[in-house]
Amino acid sequence: MAIKFEVLKECNRTGARTGLLTTPHGVINTPVFMPVGTQATVKTMTPEELKEMGARIILGNTYHLYMRPGHKLVEKAGGLHRFMNWDRSILTDSGGFQVFSLADLRDISEEGVHFRSHIDGSRHFISPEKAVEIQNSLGSDIMMAFDECPPYPCEYDYAKKSMNITARWAERCLKAHKNTEGQALFGIIQGSVYKDLRRESARQITSLGFPGYAVGGLSVGEPKDIMYEMLEEVVPLMPADKPRYLMGVGSPDSIIEGVIRGIDMFDCVLQTRIARNGTAMTSRGRVVIRNAAYAEDFSPLDPECDCYTCTNYTKAYIRHLLKAGEILGLRLTTFHNLYFTMRLMDKIREAIEGDYLPEFRDEFFAKYGY
Amino acid sequence: MAIKFEVLKECNRTGARTGLLTTPHGVINTPVFMPVGTQATVKTMTPEELKEMGARIILGNTYHLYMRPGHKLVEKAGGLHRFMNWDRSILTDSGGFQVFSLADLRDISEEGVHFRSHIDGSRHFISPEKAVEIQNSLGSDIMMAFDECPPYPCEYDYAKKSMNITARWAERCLKAHKNTEGQALFGIIQGSVYKDLRRESARQITSLGFPGYAVGGLSVGEPKDIMYEMLEEVVPLMPADKPRYLMGVGSPDSIIEGVIRGIDMFDCVLQTRIARNGTAMTSRGRVVIRNAAYAEDFSPLDPECDCYTCTNYTKAYIRHLLKAGEILGLRLTTFHNLYFTMRLMDKIREAIEGDYLPEFRDEFFAKYGY
Repeated sequence: MAIKFEVLKECNRTGARTGLLTTPHGVINTPVFMPVGTQATVKTMTPEELKEMGARIILGNTYHLYMRPGHKLVEKAGGLHRFMNWDRSILTDSGGFQVFSLADLRDISEEGVHFRSHIDGSRHFISPEKAVEIQNSLGSDIMMAFDECPPYPCEYDYAKKSMNITARWAERCLKAHKNTEGQALFGIIQGSVYKDLRRESARQITSLGFPGYAVGGLSVGEPKDIMYEMLEEVVPLMPADKPRYLMGVGSPDSIIEGVIRGIDMFDCVLQTRIARNGTAMTSRGRVVIRNAAYAEDFSPLDPECDCYTCTNYTKAYIRHLLKAGEILGLRLTTFHNLYFTMRLMDKIREAIEGDYLPEFRDEFFAKYGY
Repeated sequence: MAIKFEVLKECNRTGARTGLLTTPHGVINTPVFMPVGTQATVKTMTPEELKEMGARIILGNTYHLYMRPGHKLVEKAGGLHRFMNWDRSILTDSGGFQVFSLADLRDISEEGVHFRSHIDGSRHFISPEKAVEIQNSLGSDIMMAFDECPPYPCEYDYAKKSMNITARWAERCLKAHKNTEGQALFGIIQGSVYKDLRRESARQITSLGFPGYAVGGLSVGEPKDIMYEMLEEVVPLMPADKPRYLMGVGSPDSIIEGVIRGIDMFDCVLQTRIARNGTAMTSRGRVVIRNAAYAEDFSPLDPECDCYTCTNYTKAYIRHLLKAGEILGLRLTTFHNLYFTMRLMDKIREAIEGDYLPEFRDEFFAKYGY
């Protein structure tokens, strides 16, 4: 087996737990947030900066890497870890979500998906077998099964059909995956916002015996309450001794609510994306740094933060950099937002260990402004 | 006096010398290359990265900082050093060059220059007194006198008139500068490409008794041979016990030729600008990283370089980052180009100390491809 997972402590008052996830590239304390490195780089950051903030696993996007620079080139480079100079763990998604959200003219059949590249319009075909092959070339520690991620809203009949195709594709992915000693393949539960489909998908996927399970197709536009309801349906059906990953979800409030419902792994582009738009996540909520109010504010982004950005720079300076279009501004806000989230994960794990997660949740929400 | 300058070693076979320039923010070995931090940041870099490559003095652009965020804001922040978190030396230019090259609708009179902002079209006026006031607010270690920098080509009569105005403005700058203990003000020699005007300007400016002197108005489009001829005219007229600064010049070949003719200080945007366009300076000449030839080149930018970029990343990876529009690509190439130049300065100083500068020059040019 490529990975090991051990639950360390279960919360008595919620579904939360802490754990240790071991991959060929190291040990990861869960619940964990995985910064997103779509194109073989976490935007604006070096690997050393990610280590400085405590990142132990990052995410790579199979669709993007397949398109550019190509998985065969990454394989020639010695795999994604060597290509991008990151010696800790990597999880790659299956490309499914991006094929459905980014690519043009996609045509879904039982066999797989035909589509056109969003970069150059070239024609491509990804099947479950192809998605596994690409991820084998990339050499990620954790691979994801190729799924169909339906949009929101989605008719019940389509959601059901899509869920069933996802189950058949999951089985084909398992069969196609040869490097089980080097890479773990996770299954993905779909079912849109229909409780019975979510439960059915959970039963279908978990019956296949993956070393880890993800909940996919959430945070695609539905209200957050519905996302939490879906988690409440599926998590109890997911094996307690396997890691549970909520795909594409990572706002501070959703992380806390997800952990409370038993989720161990999160990823999200929110932290890095809003950073580049000039918004900082802070202990007092979001700070829109470009606001004129901060023009002469010589205090740090977050007075409670001890990150490189907050230790060395003022809002006034970062605002100047952003307004002047200077890259250092994007670096400083990105570093801060990721650091803020990594510290949030530390605090969540401490709250689970210390049995005060519900209190932590209430305090955080009151302060963060939810 | 805000600065001290000591010549350490004079080359027997060229005009080159090594020296120690001491400012309120530290000691600088000369000849020195100053990375350009136009808008209170050396593009894409942190101060720590600049220190890692050995930078001891950087340049800030008065025109840009006056426009955005404004010198009064920088003063409120505690000066440019504190604003941008750089505790080593800073040289600011006078804004003259940018007023003439960037601003719109400029109107030059004896009093100063009326112009419109290149950012928002607002009307402004900079006089010698104003340029000094702005630089006093910024708190740079070395300030530059406000000069008129004529374009190339330039008629003799205009060049002469411009040279005379520059001399009168230099005198007004000296009178306006009060903080002589905290900040050194350098004079600027102009005179376009006319030898007699260059000599006349050198006499005019040096007669005013500045703690350092610059040669301005070169590398503005004239052939390099003419630039070197002008240096040969003016350097002998510049006091040997004061630092000599060749403004806006910093290609590797021009640095070496400038040092040979007695120049101690250089600055240039070339290193950072071509880096962002995807060109690396290497020991074998320029490498255009985007070229298809490097798609599967898993060797470093420069096999002789031990910088962070060359130690950790391949051409194939950096090419991927640049093609994908990823900021890390700009960071890696910028770091490399600046590091390459800082090491070039180390080697030049060693060559002067070791009395082999002409041989170093020939070897470097043969390898670099000049």
